[in-house]
Parts: sequence; structure tokens; C-alpha cells
Amino acid sequence: MAGNTFGQIFTVTTFGESHGSALGCIIDGCPPGLALSVADIQADLDRRRPGTSRHVTQRREADEVEILSGVFEGHTTGTPIALLIRNTDQRSKDYGNIASQFRPGHADYTYWHKYGTRDYRGGGRSSARETAARVAAGAVAKKWLQQQFGTELVAYITQVGEHIIAFEGEEHITQNPFFAANHSQIAALEAYMDSVRKSLDSVGAKLHIVARNVPVGLGEPVFDRLDADIAHAMMSINAVKGVEIGAGFDCVAQRGSEHGDELTPSGFLSNHAGGVLGGISSGQDIRVNIAIKPTSSIATTRRSIDVHGNAVDIATHGRHDPCVGLRAAPIAEAMLALVLMDHALRQRAQNADVRVNTPDIARHPTTSA
Amino acid sequence: MAGNTFGQIFTVTTFGESHGSALGCIIDGCPPGLALSVADIQADLDRRRPGTSRHVTQRREADEVEILSGVFEGHTTGTPIALLIRNTDQRSKDYGNIASQFRPGHADYTYWHKYGTRDYRGGGRSSARETAARVAAGAVAKKWLQQQFGTELVAYITQVGEHIIAFEGEEHITQNPFFAANHSQIAALEAYMDSVRKSLDSVGAKLHIVARNVPVGLGEPVFDRLDADIAHAMMSINAVKGVEIGAGFDCVAQRGSEHGDELTPSGFLSNHAGGVLGGISSGQDIRVNIAIKPTSSIATTRRSIDVHGNAVDIATHGRHDPCVGLRAAPIAEAMLALVLMDHALRQRAQNADVRVNTPDIARHPTTSA
Amino acid sequence: MAGNTFGQIFTVTTFGESHGSALGCIIDGCPPGLALSVADIQADLDRRRPGTSRHVTQRREADEVEILSGVFEGHTTGTPIALLIRNTDQRSKDYGNIASQFRPGHADYTYWHKYGTRDYRGGGRSSARETAARVAAGAVAKKWLQQQFGTELVAYITQVGEHIIAFEGEEHITQNPFFAANHSQIAALEAYMDSVRKSLDSVGAKLHIVARNVPVGLGEPVFDRLDADIAHAMMSINAVKGVEIGAGFDCVAQRGSEHGDELTPSGFLSNHAGGVLGGISSGQDIRVNIAIKPTSSIATTRRSIDVHGNAVDIATHGRHDPCVGLRAAPIAEAMLALVLMDHALRQRAQNADVRVNTPDIARHPTTSA
Amino acid sequence: MAGNTFGQIFTVTTFGESHGSALGCIIDGCPPGLALSVADIQADLDRRRPGTSRHVTQRREADEVEILSGVFEGHTTGTPIALLIRNTDQRSKDYGNIASQFRPGHADYTYWHKYGTRDYRGGGRSSARETAARVAAGAVAKKWLQQQFGTELVAYITQVGEHIIAFEGEEHITQNPFFAANHSQIAALEAYMDSVRKSLDSVGAKLHIVARNVPVGLGEPVFDRLDADIAHAMMSINAVKGVEIGAGFDCVAQRGSEHGDELTPSGFLSNHAGGVLGGISSGQDIRVNIAIKPTSSIATTRRSIDVHGNAVDIATHGRHDPCVGLRAAPIAEAMLALVLMDHALRQRAQNADVRVNTPDIARHPTTSA
Repeated sequence: MAGNTFGQIFTVTTFGESHGSALGCIIDGCPPGLALSVADIQADLDRRRPGTSRHVTQRREADEVEILSGVFEGHTTGTPIALLIRNTDQRSKDYGNIASQFRPGHADYTYWHKYGTRDYRGGGRSSARETAARVAAGAVAKKWLQQQFGTELVAYITQVGEHIIAFEGEEHITQNPFFAANHSQIAALEAYMDSVRKSLDSVGAKLHIVARNVPVGLGEPVFDRLDADIAHAMMSINAVKGVEIGAGFDCVAQRGSEHGDELTPSGFLSNHAGGVLGGISSGQDIRVNIAIKPTSSIATTRRSIDVHGNAVDIATHGRHDPCVGLRAAPIAEAMLALVLMDHALRQRAQNADVRVNTPDIARHPTTSA
Repeated sequence: MAGNTFGQIFTVTTFGESHGSALGCIIDGCPPGLALSVADIQADLDRRRPGTSRHVTQRREADEVEILSGVFEGHTTGTPIALLIRNTDQRSKDYGNIASQFRPGHADYTYWHKYGTRDYRGGGRSSARETAARVAAGAVAKKWLQQQFGTELVAYITQVGEHIIAFEGEEHITQNPFFAANHSQIAALEAYMDSVRKSLDSVGAKLHIVARNVPVGLGEPVFDRLDADIAHAMMSINAVKGVEIGAGFDCVAQRGSEHGDELTPSGFLSNHAGGVLGGISSGQDIRVNIAIKPTSSIATTRRSIDVHGNAVDIATHGRHDPCVGLRAAPIAEAMLALVLMDHALRQRAQNADVRVNTPDIARHPTTSA
Repeated sequence: MAGNTFGQIFTVTTFGESHGSALGCIIDGCPPGLALSVADIQADLDRRRPGTSRHVTQRREADEVEILSGVFEGHTTGTPIALLIRNTDQRSKDYGNIASQFRPGHADYTYWHKYGTRDYRGGGRSSARETAARVAAGAVAKKWLQQQFGTELVAYITQVGEHIIAFEGEEHITQNPFFAANHSQIAALEAYMDSVRKSLDSVGAKLHIVARNVPVGLGEPVFDRLDADIAHAMMSINAVKGVEIGAGFDCVAQRGSEHGDELTPSGFLSNHAGGVLGGISSGQDIRVNIAIKPTSSIATTRRSIDVHGNAVDIATHGRHDPCVGLRAAPIAEAMLALVLMDHALRQRAQNADVRVNTPDIARHPTTSA
Repeated sequence: MAGNTFGQIFTVTTFGESHGSALGCIIDGCPPGLALSVADIQADLDRRRPGTSRHVTQRREADEVEILSGVFEGHTTGTPIALLIRNTDQRSKDYGNIASQFRPGHADYTYWHKYGTRDYRGGGRSSARETAARVAAGAVAKKWLQQQFGTELVAYITQVGEHIIAFEGEEHITQNPFFAANHSQIAALEAYMDSVRKSLDSVGAKLHIVARNVPVGLGEPVFDRLDADIAHAMMSINAVKGVEIGAGFDCVAQRGSEHGDELTPSGFLSNHAGGVLGGISSGQDIRVNIAIKPTSSIATTRRSIDVHGNAVDIATHGRHDPCVGLRAAPIAEAMLALVLMDHALRQRAQNADVRVNTPDIARHPTTSA
């Protein structure tokens, strides 16, 4: 209710501030019997971790996760799984102006108005650091989905600033610091990000997220449609300003005869729907795009006000990502995993039968868009 | 949980199928003391009503609402408000093939797989007719928001198919059958829609929704951010495939120095954020775009399968909107109103103080993007 | 959130005031495929109906239910089931003092303070008439439980005022106006109730509720234990002041060696637990007792105040039950059915396997307390 | 949803097993600005702590709490408050038979059936040790209630086994190891408890819980009545088998003219209602009784079965409370505090005005039952 819980049956409640002592989450509603170890979670945390290239924040955090409960003899027990990640690289510096001034485009202003107080250290609760807890929880959901349905999730960057990144193969994603499914443009992107950083500015990014082997029937019309919950999940990630499912905004200029995916006994012939029809998964790949705004903490001087309403000039120095979208892929995957697992359990509650390889679905293999 | 309730404190639970006996909703959590009559609700229902021009479905429904409870001596009592709208123009025709075949792009396929059964008459629960209940509930939220904060909501169409519609003034919105804030392009649009209809096809649409005089401080980080809940709300509307807040996907190519809205003692200097920072309303106008796909029920023959997996050719005749986006403006306004009212009450629960005209906000009047 | 919804997966949201135009509910989360007709619901409504004997209120209501949605071709579809019951015997009398005075022991005082207004006609929302909607919803849950697990629910009165009613057999329950599992004391009870009525007073009652063939494994520790949700459900019924599970308050004076139900390969040897261990159903009979206070609307003159704080003498005339507990059996059964169905679906969500006749349970038949 | 969260607006989600590495909770929805330190919480934890007398379990736990988040510069920020308590006295002994056998009256049997697995070490999640997290969270609620309304909560034992404990004054509660508001019977109780322990058996207990200075208007009819949520809260405590509000089961034999509390301009004349009318607080003291069953882990040999269904004899040795009710007072206070704070925020959401000392209430001071 206060906003820090995601999901209805598989719920994740996160806590923690950027420069507090720890962050983490409680996962409630994970079915018993899932094999789960720290290693399962750490792998995804390492993908999101800061400091892995010169293009991201230089904060040094090991992001080591501890499982406090809910796992016994290597398997989940059906009781709450608490995950703890200690902060180790909080700076005890003078935060100075940040405490009393509002960075343009930042949550400083609204947190202060909403709560009448705020933990300004490193952005406090509004920091993207909070997403570490989501990634940890998402790793649990990913594992369960993979075991139950063979579901696979993958996210990659498709645009950085004005640079559109061509899809050249998912095998490239792990081979560059941008989560790009691309090989040929990486050098140019590196140079571009260097120039952005040197200009004391930041840029936005666009990501594509895909889920394969998703059971048919997930999503609860009319309000908790699968796509509505995906939109909620994605827009809950720091800095996301737009979400598309399937054709997204391109559907506006499409005709119904073009957009509506035809079916044949051997499967759908296209996937403009992005895997969701009427708010319910169709068994095709789920396809999502998100837009991530440029980081608001930049070293360029800008106009703002302080908490007393006085005009100030503000420039933010310190360890900030020049493109927060560069580390967003594991986060987006995690949020999609949370949505899918929650809806798989919801479907199981009401229909007792969640299938990915039904005879007819097997006859109608999904086709990429 | 089963998906037919929206909101956390101000909750709306809808029911009803397109060709069932009635549809409606229960609103729970409306504060006592709000003056409320049928007329308050009927006005918005009439805006959404079918059959008002040749460009929309010719189904004839009066959409007359009855208030069954929760109002006493002209005012809300704090108890549940049940609203009932009888269906009067259900056709007792032979539904024939619709019962056993799946329209491309339609919820037919997924409802059948999810539930193992479906009310195929007029699309059943997946019909856009369900949104009448949302519009009715939204009217209550609109009235409360207007009285509490002077909040005003307006939605208008900005694109139909490939036709981008210039903004010429909100005063035009009620003067044409498209909810267009435009005068000069209406004749061309009418001709365009006639051609679409004659071609037995349908087109998509794009809408812009604005809320003015929104209190600062609405939204519950980290998951129930105001923009995340708006995305959820909008994507829960039939046929919506994309949602943008503020600059939306345009933020990808922006620099941080451009995107982050500067503040001065006399207010924000821009509104790329769309009125939400860190998931919390800033007091600026909320600005949202949505993409609506072309209607999937079209009279053009297309390939599909039946419930047995056999190939069929299918064409849908009957009373369908050639552009479902043409009637979406009141629905989008209603959903935004539901989100804002719910979050105003949530803010009141935890912070006891929801303000729109605080001294500092008054000093910083919002500026349109 | 505003309190008019019960359940988490199988949810029931009720609406309606005693003298408003209608009351009813929306059931969300009922699995598809359940055969359901008006007759299934009407039977339980008729059991709760007023005016069936001289010992209950003489208000005449047919309590005819209409199914507005969610049922197609005689079966549930998985979409919301809206149920409507029109009020037909609202009196257009002068409500007079009731509007401005507070009956001792009645919700008048607290509704007025909570909401600043109240629908005083017939008690408005606080009237026991609201429970008709619960009974209607409970009938749906009962049918599902019966079909899934063979679950049977029965409630009967065990005390009226100072009269303890001996258990002589469940076959008697339908043969007297008190829902008493008794034959020999009925004449005495009739005389007793007549004397209470003539004395212009009212009395309390105690009921016992049993559920048989309940699956093992229902209940979600630690907060949503099955017994905790049963306690919530029972205490949410008008006038209930106490709830016991199994031995209840008698457990205080028991030794652990007496209270803890021993097991043998052929079953439990006793049922002091009332069918719940650690908040989870054990497969034994669920056994619950509730205490119902005497009706607060009585014709005896009592001291009170009016809305201005002035002392008044108040006596309530009209059609009131002299013992509201006499009609409570169907309501208590309904509430227990709602809890059990909700938890069966919750168990299905997380454990995918809800069983009543597992091999080991079959080997350990439950034993009555 | 999976049962480990309590509350709607002020939510507490607990985690942890008896012999795991830690237990704790996340509190979400605490208003910002509340002064909060470890000391505020530790005081109540120390009251619940094991090992404080020979009459309770001899497990040695410091129960030191760490605040991980949500507090900045000594005050809450409105973000989630995570509390961590490390387990320090888990025994690495051979758990032997406990892993494969079911203790009569214990959750062993139902956990095993529900989850298909269980953490049997020290009772795992079903251990009363979990209540430490509740007490920690309750301390936050108590402090807020005290500051907002001057609300005071106190619980004391009123019966142990067959011994009814006379009320002699609340000042005695802290002066004996039983939370008894009594001085004259303590020596007899000590001897009684010694005899119970020596007999290798356990006994039940009854507690009374009072809340004073409770705002009028708390509780959300019809399902989330204040008394219904109190019943839920109390029955969610390990071993509780019965709950009474006000007169409780005594109301059965009362007449309406006796039970209904009369009002005069100077206040209520009695409190049979226990401070709740129509599910809403009246401003009178909230009065609750609970029954706690005897501990099921006893050293007396009893009949049971193992996980294979074979007959076994079982006796539980180790560190167990011979009367789990002896340490229940702080837990019951905590649960009542959680309910009251949650409902105060719910009332604030919908009615914006939560008062304890309204003019008319001031004129009508509450009277003890």
C-alpha cells in the first residue's frame, strides 16, 4: 500500500537507501521446493553492479547477497525469503548543497514536498541503487520460470542518445559494456559515451525486453492485464518515461488488417501484439520497449531553487552514471520476471492449469515480429 | 486479485459483459460528504456513448446509470457506491462462427485458452463496452478532485492512422466527433474515416491526456510511483499498446541538460518530466500519451484457426468502431482521475496533508511543455 | 481497503443499505466452469430471509437474487459475478428520532462520528440486512467447495440467552425456527422467545459452525492463518463479540497432554484443535463457536444522547429481531465458506496441489471432538 | 497474499525461522517525521525475550535489533523501515526424530502437508520466536499512537491453567514473571508453574488487553471492522484459540437492556461493547480477551505418527516454555498496536480527520467495564 511491495501472490517488498547500512527485500509467496543458493542470485547482481566499466558509476560495491530465511537444505520452504545486501562504499563526505537544493529533473524536489524530509545522501531511497534488491528478487523468479516453463528473458539496449543500435545477435550482449546485441557499433558507442562524459552531460537510452516460452493464459482482465502490469513494472524503474508492448506507438499508423496477427494451424504469422491479446498472454514472445531518460545528476551548471525557494546554480559532481540506461537491462529483465511469475501463480490459483506446451500451442509455434 | 478491481484506497470493481443483462461497478473508499447525483455521472457516460456519429459503432445504448447505494440525501456517505447500467441493445442474432473461431488480433484466442470457456457474445468481458463502468466511476473521481484541488482533466486525439492532428485549442474538442483539439483538419478526418470504413478496415490512434492543478506529492515510491500507476491504468484500457509520460520516448535522444526541467523562484521552466519526478507529482501538469491499436474486428477476410486448430477464413461483420481510439478520450480521462484520486487519498493517509496551492508551489506556477 | 471486500483471491465486495433501492455484491476470482444458477443461491437466501417465523423481524422481503454477469450458458466464465437483490419493503415512514439520536449499543454513534453523516433509515449500511449479500456469495463458495472436495458446512445454535441447547442431531436443524440441532427443547425455546419479545427486550445467542471434508494445507502463516481469517470473518458479522476455534477458551485450563490431539495410523484421536494446527487446516473438521450479542434496537426506554450531546430517553419500535442470532446460522456458514474457498485457491496458487483425500489422510480419518 | 504481511496502509512483513540466521521485518507506510531509535524498539523486545525467569524457555537470545533503513537523523523518512534481529543461540544439535515425526498439537503435521517440506529446526517458521519481529514492529506503532493520540496499551494475564488471577492493579504487571496485574497470588503461581514443569506438562493461559485513548471512528465496515481486524490479529498469534471483544461470550446470556451501553452527556455508563460499536471504535477503551493453548512441545510421551504414517511414541525434550502464554503480553500489545495504527491511517485517508479529544468525546469520558 505504501508502495514498496510489488506483486499480488509472488510479492517482493524492498527496503534500503543508497548510503544507508543495507538494502534488500522480502520475497513472499515463492512456492516450496525450488533449489536456490546465493550463486543463483549473485550472477544477476553482478550484471547490474556498478564500476564494471568506465561508462558507468565508479562506486565500488561488491553487492554480495545473504539469504536470511526461507531456504532450508538448499531449497525454498514456502516461507518468506529475506535477502540482505550490505552497502560498503557509502561516502562519508560532506553532502553540502545536495541537502538543501533540488537537482533539475531529480526526485529531490518531490521527495521533499511529499515527506517534508528526505535522506539526501546519494539520493537516498530514490537512488537507482534500490534496484539491486529487485534484481536479486528477479533472479529467484527467473529460476522458477525457467524450471517450470523453460521461460527465458533477455534485455538489450537498442538506442543510446541519438544512436540507434542495430540488432546483430543476442550472443553479443555479454561481450560489451552496453548490453548491446551488436558487435559492429561498439567502438563508436564507446567513443560516444566518452564524449558525453567529457561534456559533463548525460543521455537517454532505449531497451528491448523479450520473454520466450511464456505460458498462454497469463494476465487478469480487466485491470490487471498482463500488459498493464508489465507497464506498471517497467515504469516503476527509475528514469523510465515510456513503455511499449509489441508494435507500441507504431500501431497508430497501422491498419487492422496489418496489425492483427493472423493464425494458421502452424502458428501465428506475426507478433505485432507483443505476445498479449486482451491483456492475456498468447504464448508468443512477450516483446517490450522502454525509454529511459538521461541521468539528472550532471556536472553541468543549471538553474534551480533551494528549499527556501531561493534561486541557485547547481552542478552535481561525484560518481554518477552518464547513461543510467546502460545498466538497466538486468533490472528490466528482473521486473518482467516478477510480473510473469506473479501472473503464473495467479493463473494457477484460478484455473489450476498453467501450460506452455499445450498441443495446440505446440502446433502454433510463435513467430518473431 | 482476480483483476477486476482498480485502486488501493479509492477502489473500483467493475462487472459485466457486452451482451449480458447489465454492467456496472462498486466504488469503495469514496470519502463521505461529496455531493453526487446521476447527472454528475451521466454527462461523462454520454461522451463515451456509442452511436453518436457515423464514425463509431451504431449500437444504440442509452447508457443510463442508476446509483444503487452509498448516496443519501444527495451526498456520499462513505459506504460503497454501486452503479448499474442496463444493456438494452444486445442482439439476439446468431453469433455463428464467432463462438468457435478466433479473430486475428482479438482476445478470443487468449480468453478461450485462459478460461477454457468464453462468453463470445459481442466480445463478452473483453468488449470495450466494459469501459462504460470505468467512465462512470471516473466521473465520481473527477468531481472530487475538482472540488478538492480544482483538478481538471482533458484528453484529446493527436493522431488517427497516419494523420497527425495539430493542436489548435481545447475549445474545439467538443465540436467534432473525434475529440480533436483541432478545427482545420476535421473535414479531412471525416473523409479519411469514411474511406477507412469503406475499405472494411480499421486504424489506430494516439491520444494526449493532461491533468492540471494536481497536488504535489502524489505517488508512492518505489513501485507504486504515480507514473507507474498511470502506465498501469492506461495500458489496462482495451487496445492500448504504448504509454508515455512527459517527453516519453523522445527522452532517449535528449541530453540531461535538456531533459531536466530547471526551476526558478517563479516556477519550472519546462515540463519534460510530464509532472512526475521520482514517481511523485511535482505540481506541474501531468502529461500522458497513449497509443491505441486498430480495431481487430474488421470485415476484411483474414486467416485464422478455430477452436479445434483448423484453418479458417474469418471476416467480422456487425457494429464495430473502425477506430476504437475515437471514443477513448473519456475513458483515458476517467482512468487518470481514478489514479489521481487514489493517490491523493494514499498521500493523505501517510502524510495527512495534500496541497495543491502551497506557498512555494504558488510561487512556482507550472509551465506547459 | 475501505473495508467492503472480503478475501484475497476469491473476493466478495458487497454494497447496499437497509432501506436503499438494492443490495448485492461482486464476486471476483471464481474459477470458470462452475455450474451456477439463481436456484443455487436462492436456497440459502431463503434460509436467512426475514419474516419466516414470529420470532424474527416481520419485514417482508422476497430477497430474490438476479445474476447480472459472469455466468454464461449456466456456468461461470471466470469473470466477475455480480448479484443484485432489490429491496422491496422499505418503509416510507417518518424515521423521526432515529436520525438525530443514538441507540445504546448501536452503530448509530460510531457511524455518525466516523463519517460525519449516516443513512439512518433502518440502520443503513450497519443493518444486518447487508448480510444477505454475504449469504448469496457464500452459496457460490459452498457449491464450489462441495464439488471440489465434498466439503459440507453446517451451523446451529447452541445457546439462546441463558438456555443451553443440547445437541440431539443435525437432522433437527431445519425443523425449527431456531436452527437448533435439537428437538426436545424447542417448545421451551418458543415460550422463552415469546417472553423476551413481550418484555420489550432482546437476548444473545451462541452458535457452533462445522466444516467437514476440508482439504489439508489451507491457511497462510504467519498472519493469514486459517483460524485468523476465520476469526476475522466471524467477527465481521454484525453483533458477534467472541470467536473460538476448537476448544477455544476451554484450552486455558487444559494441560498440553490433554489438549494436543494424538495421532495414530488410523487418524487423530481427538479434535481440540478444531481442525487447525499452526494456522493450517489439518484435514479434521473445522469447529468454530461464536457469541452474538442481544439486539440493540429494543422497545425498552433507555438513556442516551442526541447528535448535539443532549440527554434523551430512547426506545426503538418497529420490526426488529429480538434475537439476531436466530438468523445467523446461514450467515456464519457463508462466511466460513468464503474463507475456505479463498484459502483453497491461495493454496493452489502456491502449492498447486489441494487435496482432501490423500492416501495418508484417508488412513487417518478425522474424529469429532 | 502469502500471509506474511499484516496491515493495509501500515504494513508489517516478517521473515525468519527459529534456528535460521536472522529474523526481522519490513515496516512500510510509517509516516515521516517520527523520532525513532533502537532504544524505542529494544525495550519491548526485552519484555518478550526468552530466558528471563525459570518459568520460560532457557534459550539465550539478546534479541538486539538493528534498524537497516527508513530512519535518517533520528526520524522516520516515510520509506520502508527494515529491522534485523540475528539469531545467536541456535543449537547445532541432532534434531533427530523431530525431522520425521509429528508432535501432537504442533504445526509439524500441517506444515509438512502444506509445503511438502519444512524447516524442523526449533519449529522453523512456526516457532513463537517469529513474534519477536511483531514486537519490534509493534513498538513503532505504539510510539506513533502515543504521540498522536496519547494511546496507551497494556496486556496482562488473567488466568493460568485453572488459576484465575485477580486484578489488583496494573502497577504489579512489571513486578512478576507472569505479566500479572496481581501481587497476592504470585507465590502460588510460581509454585504452580514449578509443579507443571516438573510434571513434564504444560498449561494454557488467558490474557486481557486494553487500549486507552483510542480515537473514535477507527474501523472500516463491513468486513474490516475494527473488532474483526483485532480478532484476526489476535488469532494470528501462535497458540491463540479464542478472542473476545468487550463482554465476549458473556453477551450470550445478557439482555439487550443490559448489554447496550447507555450514554449520558457525561459519557458512556458502561463498556460491554469493549470500545467497538458497529465495527467502529467508540472512543471508549478497547477491551480484548484471548485464550492461549498449552504448549504442544512437552516431555510427556504421547502417541503420534511419522512422515510415513507409522505409529511412534514421541516426547519433546529441550528448551520450551511450559506456558507459552506467560510471554504473550508484549505480543498481544504489539498486535493491537498494529491494528490501531493501521486503522488510524485508513481513517485519515478517507475522512481526513482522526480525533481522540473531540468536544463531545471530551464531554463523554469513557467508563471502564
